[in-house]
Amino acid sequence: MGLKSLRVVRVGHRYVRDYRTLTHLCLVSRALGAECIYLEEVEKELLDTVGEVNRTWGGGFSVEQGAWKKVFREAKEEGRTTVHLTMYGDPLQERVEELRKKGSFLLAVGGPKVPGEVYRLADYNVAVTSQPHSEIAALAIAIHDIQKGEELKKVFGDYKLRIVPSARGKQVEQRT
Amino acid sequence: MGLKSLRVVRVGHRYVRDYRTLTHLCLVSRALGAECIYLEEVEKELLDTVGEVNRTWGGGFSVEQGAWKKVFREAKEEGRTTVHLTMYGDPLQERVEELRKKGSFLLAVGGPKVPGEVYRLADYNVAVTSQPHSEIAALAIAIHDIQKGEELKKVFGDYKLRIVPSARGKQVEQRT
Repeated sequence: MGLKSLRVVRVGHRYVRDYRTLTHLCLVSRALGAECIYLEEVEKELLDTVGEVNRTWGGGFSVEQGAWKKVFREAKEEGRTTVHLTMYGDPLQERVEELRKKGSFLLAVGGPKVPGEVYRLADYNVAVTSQPHSEIAALAIAIHDIQKGEELKKVFGDYKLRIVPSARGKQVEQRT
Repeated sequence: MGLKSLRVVRVGHRYVRDYRTLTHLCLVSRALGAECIYLEEVEKELLDTVGEVNRTWGGGFSVEQGAWKKVFREAKEEGRTTVHLTMYGDPLQERVEELRKKGSFLLAVGGPKVPGEVYRLADYNVAVTSQPHSEIAALAIAIHDIQKGEELKKVFGDYKLRIVPSARGKQVEQRT
């Protein structure tokens, strides 16, 4: 089954603000084909950044405010497979074949202090290596593997600028 | 040819300090099997963080201070393939088969204000999507694809703690 729908939620301590990590998580989700990301708190600066990326580079990715537990509950009601990315989980490479058979996902990435409940509520707890590294990298590799790299070919509609890939230098097409 | 050696360099404006992004780049490089990362400036706080990760989780990953141009020159002298990750480059999926035939790499990721010279000096300019997202995610996907996911199985020697993967909760083995 091809991927039908992918959403991302960031779970974790809501008072830790980390503008740059959140920006990376949003832009990675967008670039790799997610429809939206849910955050416990949405700050205006982040919305502005993502809005500007959409206007310039296309697509309709959105940042939504949502308490993680509600987001999980709704995802389950919609029949999404919920996958929590954690270094403590089963190795991605042992679960990816199974995950590729699913059509709709909620991928959960942790910030600081992930509540233990997430481990119980998620359909899968999956590790992208059991080493400490980066939720941004773990999210990227998981989305990439589940889609077998197909997400790299995604075309974003309604753009102002589009990069023309090139071996040297920078080529950009401006839509008039 | 299997991967023999992988090193990472961060190229870009040396005065922009971004402790968290640099930490993610270091830990992703380590977790996915690089030997070291070169940074223009190395701050003590970052060295301490990476040192503590090594002591706890094993392996001999290092953070090195090095001007990017010197790092590139030495990499070329050693016969490494230099790959610059940039949203302007050729799609990764069109270059990855070719890259898998190489044995030793220097992967370059950009910070703010990458000098134009990098585009000319790199053997490959490769894009992980042509959308703006995150150098952390781009690095992760590139390393993952070049190694066909083999890096996820890497075992780190000389650890104090090791995670025992599990479907629910957290299991950690402490070496006595």
